[in-house]
Amino acid sequence: MKNLLSRLINNIEPYMAGEQPKDKQYIKLNTNENPYPPTPKVKEVLNSFDYEKLKLYPDPNSSLLKNALAKSEDILPENIFIGNGSDEVLALCFPTFFNREEKEVVFADITYSFYPVYCNFFGINFIKKNLDDDFKININDYLNLKNAQGIIIANPNAPTGRGIELDIIEKIVKENSDKVVIIDEAYIDFYRKSAVKLTKIYDNLLVVKTFSKSYSLAGIRCGYAVGNKKLIDGLECSKNSFNSYPIDRICEAVCTAAVCDKEYYDKINNEIIAEREILEKELNKLGLIVIPSNSNFVLAGYPNYGKILYEQLKDKGILVRYFDKDRLKSFIRITIGSKSENFALITKIKSIIGNINNI
Amino acid sequence: MKNLLSRLINNIEPYMAGEQPKDKQYIKLNTNENPYPPTPKVKEVLNSFDYEKLKLYPDPNSSLLKNALAKSEDILPENIFIGNGSDEVLALCFPTFFNREEKEVVFADITYSFYPVYCNFFGINFIKKNLDDDFKININDYLNLKNAQGIIIANPNAPTGRGIELDIIEKIVKENSDKVVIIDEAYIDFYRKSAVKLTKIYDNLLVVKTFSKSYSLAGIRCGYAVGNKKLIDGLECSKNSFNSYPIDRICEAVCTAAVCDKEYYDKINNEIIAEREILEKELNKLGLIVIPSNSNFVLAGYPNYGKILYEQLKDKGILVRYFDKDRLKSFIRITIGSKSENFALITKIKSIIGNINNI
Repeated sequence: MKNLLSRLINNIEPYMAGEQPKDKQYIKLNTNENPYPPTPKVKEVLNSFDYEKLKLYPDPNSSLLKNALAKSEDILPENIFIGNGSDEVLALCFPTFFNREEKEVVFADITYSFYPVYCNFFGINFIKKNLDDDFKININDYLNLKNAQGIIIANPNAPTGRGIELDIIEKIVKENSDKVVIIDEAYIDFYRKSAVKLTKIYDNLLVVKTFSKSYSLAGIRCGYAVGNKKLIDGLECSKNSFNSYPIDRICEAVCTAAVCDKEYYDKINNEIIAEREILEKELNKLGLIVIPSNSNFVLAGYPNYGKILYEQLKDKGILVRYFDKDRLKSFIRITIGSKSENFALITKIKSIIGNINNI
Repeated sequence: MKNLLSRLINNIEPYMAGEQPKDKQYIKLNTNENPYPPTPKVKEVLNSFDYEKLKLYPDPNSSLLKNALAKSEDILPENIFIGNGSDEVLALCFPTFFNREEKEVVFADITYSFYPVYCNFFGINFIKKNLDDDFKININDYLNLKNAQGIIIANPNAPTGRGIELDIIEKIVKENSDKVVIIDEAYIDFYRKSAVKLTKIYDNLLVVKTFSKSYSLAGIRCGYAVGNKKLIDGLECSKNSFNSYPIDRICEAVCTAAVCDKEYYDKINNEIIAEREILEKELNKLGLIVIPSNSNFVLAGYPNYGKILYEQLKDKGILVRYFDKDRLKSFIRITIGSKSENFALITKIKSIIGNINNI
C-alpha cells in the first residue's frame, strides 16, 4: 500500500488529550475544566457582537486583548504574545527558542505530556529529570545545565498538582541566563505565585498562561506568553511563518471581557481552592494517597489501583484521568468539580474502595 | 547583546499579511475579504449560543461541522480535516507530506507567498516554476517530476486570479501518483471548478478550502482539507503534535450554520462575479492591463506604475495590495468590493491615470 506521509508523521506519537465524550453524559472531572461558567459578561459580548464584522480578518496583533492583559498583569502590551490556546503558544516556543538536533531541552519525567511531542515534531532533543518520590523537582537538576539549550517547567505541575516556590523558579532562571526558561503557568491562578513579575528582571524567562482553566474558557481557545520583547518578537516571527491569524474576532472580544472581570474570577477560583481542600481531606479519610495540590485537580490513588479506580468511576458515570505510566499506576487525576460533583465522586470512591478492601 | 532565538527564527523571513489598518477608515480592497456580511444565520447562532458551554473544551474532531461539510461537498466526514483557517491547514501539510531537506516541493514563481515560508519553517526544499507571460502555468512544468516530492497549486491562483481547467489539474494529479498534490482552492467558489470530486479517485490529491473568502468569515478562522482518509489521518497526527483544539466552540457553530445556507452564499458570490466583470471592463476602458480573473479580485496595472497606483489610491482612502516583486511591478491586486466601493475605485483610478498621462 502506498505511503504518502512523511517519515516524521509515520513515526511520531501524537499527544493524547483526555476523552471528550459525546454519546453519554458523565460527571466530567478528566480535563481540568472549570466547573463554573465564564463571567456573564461573555453572554453580553455574544449578544451584542456585530456579526457583519466577521467578514473581515481579525486584528493580527489582538491589540484590544493585549491592552487588557497588560493592565491586568501590570506589564506592557509589547511583552505579550497571544496564541490559539497555551498549547499553540507552547508549540511555537520550540522552533523559536531551540535549535534542531542540538543540545537538550530539560523537563520533568512526570509533567505535561505534550512537551516531548512538541520536541519530536520540531526535531528537538530533550532529557527528562526524575521527580522525587513525593513528585517534587530536585532543584539541582535544573542548575549548571551545560548540555542543555532550554528548560520547561509547569508550575504548578500537571498531573501532580505540585507548585514550586517563586524563589526556586527565580534561582533556576538566574542560573540559566544563557538559555530560555519557560514556565508553563496553566494552573497558576489556583496557586497565585506567578513568575510574570520576574519577566521584567530576566530576559530569558517566558511565562505561558491560558484562558482554559481559571477563566472557564476552554471552549474559546486562547493562551498567551509574557516575556522580554525580544522573546515575544521571536514568537511573532514563528507565528507569521505558520498561521498569521490564530485568534478570531469573537475569541478576542470574549477574552477581553473575561480579563476585565477579575472580581468574578477571584470568587469562583477561591471556591475551587476551598473545594480542593475539602476533597483532599475526604480522599485522605478514605485511605487514598493524596498529593497535596496547588492546582484545580488532585492526584490521588490507591497502591496499584489507578486503572481500576478510573474504570470503575467511569462505569459509575464519573470521568477522571488515568495515565498509563510506571510511576502513575496507583493514581488518578481528579479535576475539582462543583460541590455536588465532588460529593458524588467521594460517594462513588467510597464504595469502590469498600469493594477493594473486601476482596 | 544576548540572542536567545533559534537560528531558524533569526534567519527566516515570515509571511507578510496585507495591512489591517486600525487608525483610519479605508475602502478596504486589499485582503480579498467578501464585501457582503456572512449569512444572517450567524447572528442567530451568536444570540442563541449557550455561553456557559464555553467552560468545556470543544469537540476535537469538530464532528458537527464535518458532517455539514460532508453533506455539502458530497463526501464522507472521514475525508475532511479542519483547521484554524486554510493557512493552518496548509502549514500542517508540509511536515505531514514532505520530508525535510530532501527533494523539492514545486510551486509557481507567482503564487501565494506563504508557500515558501512554510517550506523554510519546516526545512523543506522547494523550486519555483515560472508562470508564462500571461501568468498561466506551463503544464509540462508539473509532469514527469523526478526530483520533486510534492506539488502545490493555488486554483484559482493568487495574486493573478487565473483559474486552471479541471482536466489539467487531473492530468497533473494522475501523472504524479507517487507524491501528494495539494490544490489550494481558497478562491474556488468564484470559479466553480473544484477538484473535490477527484479526491474520490486519486489518493494523492488533497484539496484545501477556506471560510475566509466566499463564506464571508475571515474573522472566524476556519479552513479545511478534503482527501483520502490516509492523508486526512496524517494531518490529524500533525495537528495532535502541535495543537489539539484549534477550532473553538463558537467557530464550529458559526461555520456549520454557514455551510447550511448555500442559497445565501450562491446569491452574494454570484453578485461578486457579476461585479468582477463590470470592474474588469471599466479598468480596461481606462487603459489598464487586466489579467482575466476567476477569483474575487483582479490583478490590474499600468506599465511600471504598480507602486504609484497603490500609494495614490491609499492617499485617496482606498487600500489595494501591491507586491514588491520583479514581475508584479506594474500591478496592483484589487479585491472586488461592493458596487459602490468598486465605483469609488474606478473614479479614483481614472483621476490617477489622467494625472499620469498628463506628466
